[in-house]
Amino acid sequence: MPEFDDRKVWPGANPAAQTLGCLNADEVSAYLDDVRVAVLQEIEHIVPRGTRVDRDLYDLVRDYPLRPAKMLRPALAFATCRALGGHPAAVLPTAAVLELYHNAFLIHDDVEDGSLSRRDGPTLHRAHGMPVAINVGDALLALCLKPLLDNTKLIGLGRALRVLAAVAEMSRHTAEGQAMELGWIQRGEWDLGDADYLRMVHQKTTWYTFLAPVTVGALIAGASERVVTRLRCWATLLGSAFQIQDDVLNLDGASAAYGKEAAGDLWEGKRTMILLHALRNASPAERARALAALARPRPPTLESVGDPAWKSEEDVRFLLDLVHSTYSLEYARGEGRRRAVRAQESLEQLAPLLDPTGAADHVHVAFLAGLTQYVHTRSH
Amino acid sequence: MPEFDDRKVWPGANPAAQTLGCLNADEVSAYLDDVRVAVLQEIEHIVPRGTRVDRDLYDLVRDYPLRPAKMLRPALAFATCRALGGHPAAVLPTAAVLELYHNAFLIHDDVEDGSLSRRDGPTLHRAHGMPVAINVGDALLALCLKPLLDNTKLIGLGRALRVLAAVAEMSRHTAEGQAMELGWIQRGEWDLGDADYLRMVHQKTTWYTFLAPVTVGALIAGASERVVTRLRCWATLLGSAFQIQDDVLNLDGASAAYGKEAAGDLWEGKRTMILLHALRNASPAERARALAALARPRPPTLESVGDPAWKSEEDVRFLLDLVHSTYSLEYARGEGRRRAVRAQESLEQLAPLLDPTGAADHVHVAFLAGLTQYVHTRSH
Repeated sequence: MPEFDDRKVWPGANPAAQTLGCLNADEVSAYLDDVRVAVLQEIEHIVPRGTRVDRDLYDLVRDYPLRPAKMLRPALAFATCRALGGHPAAVLPTAAVLELYHNAFLIHDDVEDGSLSRRDGPTLHRAHGMPVAINVGDALLALCLKPLLDNTKLIGLGRALRVLAAVAEMSRHTAEGQAMELGWIQRGEWDLGDADYLRMVHQKTTWYTFLAPVTVGALIAGASERVVTRLRCWATLLGSAFQIQDDVLNLDGASAAYGKEAAGDLWEGKRTMILLHALRNASPAERARALAALARPRPPTLESVGDPAWKSEEDVRFLLDLVHSTYSLEYARGEGRRRAVRAQESLEQLAPLLDPTGAADHVHVAFLAGLTQYVHTRSH
Repeated sequence: MPEFDDRKVWPGANPAAQTLGCLNADEVSAYLDDVRVAVLQEIEHIVPRGTRVDRDLYDLVRDYPLRPAKMLRPALAFATCRALGGHPAAVLPTAAVLELYHNAFLIHDDVEDGSLSRRDGPTLHRAHGMPVAINVGDALLALCLKPLLDNTKLIGLGRALRVLAAVAEMSRHTAEGQAMELGWIQRGEWDLGDADYLRMVHQKTTWYTFLAPVTVGALIAGASERVVTRLRCWATLLGSAFQIQDDVLNLDGASAAYGKEAAGDLWEGKRTMILLHALRNASPAERARALAALARPRPPTLESVGDPAWKSEEDVRFLLDLVHSTYSLEYARGEGRRRAVRAQESLEQLAPLLDPTGAADHVHVAFLAGLTQYVHTRSH
């Protein structure tokens, strides 16, 4: 059992911090960093070393997880479990599995989208070829199972099985969400409303980023059905607020801190709440021109930018102008804010149900509250 | 619990068949067909229908499994379990999961290899695009978990957990074997011996095609550790015999019955025991020319055959001639035969350990014996 005492590494756990109601952005980041260190240690236990395929497989399996990342999913599972009085060592292996699953998804998603960069480096398929990248993703998925089975010894049979069932459900939902989005792309479908977008986001992102982490964290802490249900309501609201903000940041030129290629979502032709709003509110001529631009695929390499077969910089500029002239960023910001506020209310109502068993629990509740703010107000 | 009475569907289960020691090829095929019908029913229960993503996901999830296939893996799990006195309904969900896993692997492998056809149809990525194919593979993997968790109710907690652990180990080995092969391809490595080939085959194919099915079949029947170990020895020998025969059939022009593109392994540049033997026994000039031919990738589409950037028909003809002049097919046939004979001996020694509880069990042992012959002598 790994030793991880968050009273040591997390200064907020000292008695003076008991008054904390909500962590600020810096404190949220510090909390994320601390969990990240512990999760990387877990990943070090899970991913084999010293095999014949270190070079061809396991070094690459560690590649994405070792790049700079927030590790939001493990932190959410961790904080939820701790806020409910669960032990850190009980939740860390499962938290690490969520991060491995996320990385498997990112690798396959990057191949599917033809993305060029990820976390300040080339995507895995660009560095090692598409066949290797697909297999590394599959290996990450394969490695998720053993720690979840070892959970039977760590948290008991009943809880371990419920965690496995949650992970099974999560994987299915993620594939369904991805299928929805890929289907739209393949059919060139743009006649979509907010409800379509929100349904896709719920399946593709919210399930594995918010719902599953919160659910497994609560299950491991032994939370009641009632608490799990309430936490899931909060997580669902937070998931849509998170994705809407992610989309806003991608197009918001003002935030130079944001790592992705500028306006990457427009290059990719991603169905965001923003772009769908822009299309709905465009004039017929603008809409026709926008759809023509969106029908052209993104240049597959940096060198092919400028080739008329692909989307051009002019196309992307036109789409961005349309987004601005239709006030679509503002619309999405409002929708995101509305959900973040409801998430905040939902968490406040939930707070009395959380059952802190000591001083250390307050910081975890404060992290969940801080995260609810952060998800919506973050600039990267 | 699905109803499947193999005394009804399998005529060999009548008392007259008790004298059967080893099914012949036709009887093996009939046994495979019967299991296939039951497994397809299971798959029908596992893969959702009537969802919003039927068209974009679940119809495609069913595509490969519904194409003509032997369903060797489920049959092996089924026969092993039945030969040890296990109930058909106890093993069928797990047998179906092995088939789903196999299909996930095939879809991703086809993308990784750039294969054009599979089971008398276009590969999934050729029909629906690479992004969709990757996601359909991921969905198949996601769907494997629930039936394995439902096993706790069907076969008890202990056995269900052991089956899950076997599946976890299987997935890891398969990814490792795939990584070995992809590493060789990526580095253009041809300086490989039989031991390298056999190690790769053990990880990539034997594990999920023979070892895992036999292991889970035995676990579900409640076999002793000793029986499981002996079965695994047999399965390991059978696995290499199977893959060697698969490679032989791919290059053996005489067998027109074989479905794949003629000499597909040479077009692909697959590291087979045959080709490695040919390279080892070629003259320096032949070896140099062969390596140059193998360095050229396979034409990515049927239309690009003839373009000098890709492997040419002349290249493949040269490689095939080299295989023949070095007697490499004969060498591989001999190596395959040697392993099949050892597998046969291993099964004969094992037979007394199998514990038939009634007349129906004999046919399953006879299938395992027949399969041991069939794997090596089959012509497709």
